[in-house]
Amino acid sequence: MDGPELWRELGQQLRVDSIRAAAVTKSGHPTSSMSAADLMAVLLAKYLRYDFDEPHNPANDHLIFSKGHASPLLYSIYKAAGAITDEELLTFREFGSRLQGHPTPAIPWVDVATGSLGQGLPFSVGIGLAGKQLDRIPYRIWCLCGDSEMAEGSMWEAFEHAAFYGLDNLVAIIDVNKFGQRGETMHGWDLDSYANRARAFGWHAIEIDGHDVEAIDEAYGEAAAQQGQPTVIVAHTLKGKGVKEVEDKPNWHGKALDHPEEAIAELGGERNILVEVAKPEPAEPHRFEVSGGGLPVWELGEEVATRRAYGDALAALGSTRGDVVALDGEVSNSTYAEIFRDAHPDRYFEMYIAEQQMVAAAIGMQTRGWKPFASSFGAFLSRAYDFVRMGAISDADLKLCGSHVGVSIGPDGPSQMALEDIASLRAVLGSVVLYPSDPNQTVALLDAMRQHRGVSYLRTTREKTPVLYGPDEEFRIGGSRTLRSDSADEVTLVGAGITLHECLSAADELAGKGISARVIDLYSVKPVDAGALIAAARETGAIVTVEDHWAEGGIGDVTATVLAEAGVSVALERLAVTERPGSGPPQALLAAAGIDAAHIVAAVGALREAVRV
Amino acid sequence: MDGPELWRELGQQLRVDSIRAAAVTKSGHPTSSMSAADLMAVLLAKYLRYDFDEPHNPANDHLIFSKGHASPLLYSIYKAAGAITDEELLTFREFGSRLQGHPTPAIPWVDVATGSLGQGLPFSVGIGLAGKQLDRIPYRIWCLCGDSEMAEGSMWEAFEHAAFYGLDNLVAIIDVNKFGQRGETMHGWDLDSYANRARAFGWHAIEIDGHDVEAIDEAYGEAAAQQGQPTVIVAHTLKGKGVKEVEDKPNWHGKALDHPEEAIAELGGERNILVEVAKPEPAEPHRFEVSGGGLPVWELGEEVATRRAYGDALAALGSTRGDVVALDGEVSNSTYAEIFRDAHPDRYFEMYIAEQQMVAAAIGMQTRGWKPFASSFGAFLSRAYDFVRMGAISDADLKLCGSHVGVSIGPDGPSQMALEDIASLRAVLGSVVLYPSDPNQTVALLDAMRQHRGVSYLRTTREKTPVLYGPDEEFRIGGSRTLRSDSADEVTLVGAGITLHECLSAADELAGKGISARVIDLYSVKPVDAGALIAAARETGAIVTVEDHWAEGGIGDVTATVLAEAGVSVALERLAVTERPGSGPPQALLAAAGIDAAHIVAAVGALREAVRV
Repeated sequence: MDGPELWRELGQQLRVDSIRAAAVTKSGHPTSSMSAADLMAVLLAKYLRYDFDEPHNPANDHLIFSKGHASPLLYSIYKAAGAITDEELLTFREFGSRLQGHPTPAIPWVDVATGSLGQGLPFSVGIGLAGKQLDRIPYRIWCLCGDSEMAEGSMWEAFEHAAFYGLDNLVAIIDVNKFGQRGETMHGWDLDSYANRARAFGWHAIEIDGHDVEAIDEAYGEAAAQQGQPTVIVAHTLKGKGVKEVEDKPNWHGKALDHPEEAIAELGGERNILVEVAKPEPAEPHRFEVSGGGLPVWELGEEVATRRAYGDALAALGSTRGDVVALDGEVSNSTYAEIFRDAHPDRYFEMYIAEQQMVAAAIGMQTRGWKPFASSFGAFLSRAYDFVRMGAISDADLKLCGSHVGVSIGPDGPSQMALEDIASLRAVLGSVVLYPSDPNQTVALLDAMRQHRGVSYLRTTREKTPVLYGPDEEFRIGGSRTLRSDSADEVTLVGAGITLHECLSAADELAGKGISARVIDLYSVKPVDAGALIAAARETGAIVTVEDHWAEGGIGDVTATVLAEAGVSVALERLAVTERPGSGPPQALLAAAGIDAAHIVAAVGALREAVRV
Repeated sequence: MDGPELWRELGQQLRVDSIRAAAVTKSGHPTSSMSAADLMAVLLAKYLRYDFDEPHNPANDHLIFSKGHASPLLYSIYKAAGAITDEELLTFREFGSRLQGHPTPAIPWVDVATGSLGQGLPFSVGIGLAGKQLDRIPYRIWCLCGDSEMAEGSMWEAFEHAAFYGLDNLVAIIDVNKFGQRGETMHGWDLDSYANRARAFGWHAIEIDGHDVEAIDEAYGEAAAQQGQPTVIVAHTLKGKGVKEVEDKPNWHGKALDHPEEAIAELGGERNILVEVAKPEPAEPHRFEVSGGGLPVWELGEEVATRRAYGDALAALGSTRGDVVALDGEVSNSTYAEIFRDAHPDRYFEMYIAEQQMVAAAIGMQTRGWKPFASSFGAFLSRAYDFVRMGAISDADLKLCGSHVGVSIGPDGPSQMALEDIASLRAVLGSVVLYPSDPNQTVALLDAMRQHRGVSYLRTTREKTPVLYGPDEEFRIGGSRTLRSDSADEVTLVGAGITLHECLSAADELAGKGISARVIDLYSVKPVDAGALIAAARETGAIVTVEDHWAEGGIGDVTATVLAEAGVSVALERLAVTERPGSGPPQALLAAAGIDAAHIVAAVGALREAVRV
């Protein structure tokens, strides 16, 4: 059996297995799987190039389920390919099974976690960019999309970028089964509406009947032959196709069938077709030659913005490591990613004002082993928060840099000020949050980020600040630095970034009043150096934290939590931004927010007064 | 002087004033203002219907600067309209001035804060929906967009929704000056690329020379006559138009001119044209008749999911308050917003899978005094985080509901589990975060949200839980409820939502072991009832917090911070989700995450052991 007959039978098998999988825990999305079964059958049997024994084969195609809820279909494909047993298929959604409700890279053939809709295609664009410009291997990315998720703007960021970068290695397949979760989509079966949008965005678009295996075959052939532009196949399908009880019926989204046995019979019963999936031609990924050289250093006495140090250090890392790549969201002259761009133009990706696509592209690239650093204003990374969240579920090696944080950016005003970035990015699984105050420290922390695997975030400052540390000082993820320390210390000032400099000024002023203040640079906000905070609390009896961030979820909360968990009771004052800032000179805004040296000095005075009372 | 001559002169005045404003602090975006000056001159002089003396006149048009960085132009318009003095114009970006770097509603004629690009058009869609379906007043929304921000997916969510809802009251004006911040846009001056995309999305598109005032006039006339679909005017412009030093030159984004005096001379010098802006025809907003009726109640002994209570309560609020409206992101059968939809179909807005547009639409509607409640899975609200952030800068009255939170959703797996929502939404200026555990409490808190002005968030649970509270019990923002309390209490268990029920089970089990446990329902996570926590800590000496959320920024951190600030030292254990969850039955996942009753009991044992040592 081969050709159309095989494809049709395989499509039925994928349907049957999707129904069987969902029947186990009576949950999942069989009907959303059934609509795309024929599309995937032809792909698996004829077009996909994939070595299931070697999921890390660099030449493998990539199969991304942007409609991650069709996981029963994906897992049924794995069974048909011989990658998993029928027994394992029937662990779908059970506790402890890697066959979760939505796909995650806990499964070796899954590149990225999906299930938050509108993400798989942007991830695919990242893999497509890697294939074209980094790996330089002609693997294809096949991305199965739902029609309902076409309402997500992130899909159109992906359409825009894929066309702009000429990703003819990318094929999007839209399963137009007409139904979302709660009813019809905006466009129903109006295939033109999708195809015309895609064409306007610069894609090649093909409209087909998604249950006509010959038409599917022809469309894939046409897509594979396409040069210079990505292809979208817009397929008219029936949700629940093949089973009368559910076929093209509303209210069957995300539900197991009531009568799976009857449905399986209606589909012609169980099958056990094993597809010999074609393996890719062997290929080795391109490696970038590097020139070597050292990391940048700055001398004490200089004034340098940490954002500038980010650019210099990233460019230098790029010169010693060929796997480092950079992306930026159309602000590279502010984040200083432009220094990397100029040094390594073939490893730099301009993602324009599309932060979701930027982060998604980075997540896509890291699936292929590249080390992507993605930068924008810290405030605008909030646009990609769901992508960062999903990146953590993917166990992605994602390095982010947010510049222009806090009120200290000055005249641009609150829309440009990241004041929630520490809180939101701390609340990401396994994340690292770093906040340097000095250029040499920025270099050290950036290199630590490079070596760290996981989601990490570097918070940089717009304004120039004095160099505090020599180039040989060591800084590590989870560390802190005590800058002033004396046995006579009566209070500890905890800051990072711009506020560390305010803490130092305050300590000077306090010294003039005869008050000895310890100063801690809490540059690693997560993980935090609890030991240093606890020791300082015990030894000085009073702590003032200062941060250019809202009061929630930042340095003050971290410090308080460390102390409370350790059962250390001290006088504590948390200085942070608590009111809506406006525009003005940086120093005026720091003062207005109550986080400058003068307010630190006043807080110390008030704390001492309170303790005395 | 009138007609084209006036428009040209006014355009030059707006350029001159933009340059003058930016010269004050030598910062701002004069060149981005100069490209759109002619477009705005014709609008102000002929098409805008606005009573600057009565910014709250319901019949006023709305002028939204999606390219918020062109604020010098907006403020120059206010001067030309006589709304502000020249003296005030020259406070631009100074500390304390309401004329901030980017527009905010600190200025009475600004509806929404912009400056995070890609937001003004989605907000405009919200106002457009309000005009059509709520206010039912023929005001127009004129939205000035930058070409660079067209890369944001949120713009295409707006294009999609505006066309779908037939918003012929919306006119988008794209100022195609070809340059972004750091260089050329993807499409340069290819006006067709924008117009074709817009047409594919169902808009009427007009391409013009944005410096030809007659062409601008004609385009506005055509847009104003358009029926049944929105119009976009795609205008070819020159950044820095009119001043040789900067006209069509790169690297002049966000910079004051080096030689403002010469530039002003080149533009023909200062002018003081005062435009008599046409006032709108008086109109009163539509008011929805309401049927009245009470809020829903549930009896002790019932089992009801709080998400279900949200739907019932919202529908009931809609029956007593005509200003309550609801939006949902294509999951209304999961969030139960569908109950409102069925009860009040003309005040319900299906926003499909476009969370950014959903939140933006809510922000747009509240500018007109409506009370929008927007719901989705809590996890997917993370998609709109930047919009919530900007909503807070707008001082928006924005009510959010996130369902399906935490590992307790069960088989769908981590992509669908909100585990960062408390942390991220606490870190929003002035926000309220509520997390009910019971349907009657949900009703009370939802009504409190309705009465509260600001950004508020209700976290609801997927699973059914037993009714704990009678319908007459009172709950308030900032409150808590102590469910078990005894002078013999040796430990306090703090939970909310699903974990409160685990706390109660644990307390029962502990009682069986002779350990008396206090139980606090911390349903208001922000603001928090610090007094109850401090008293419980002092009286019981030990606290265990339990939450279905990451360990960062949630109930545990809030409790720790309260205790640390109060200087209360107790044995503290924070139970939270710390590892990547999978799929499985809710109770198995609660156990695996270490946040079920058994783990609470064990934690209490360990705490007592530690204290004893």
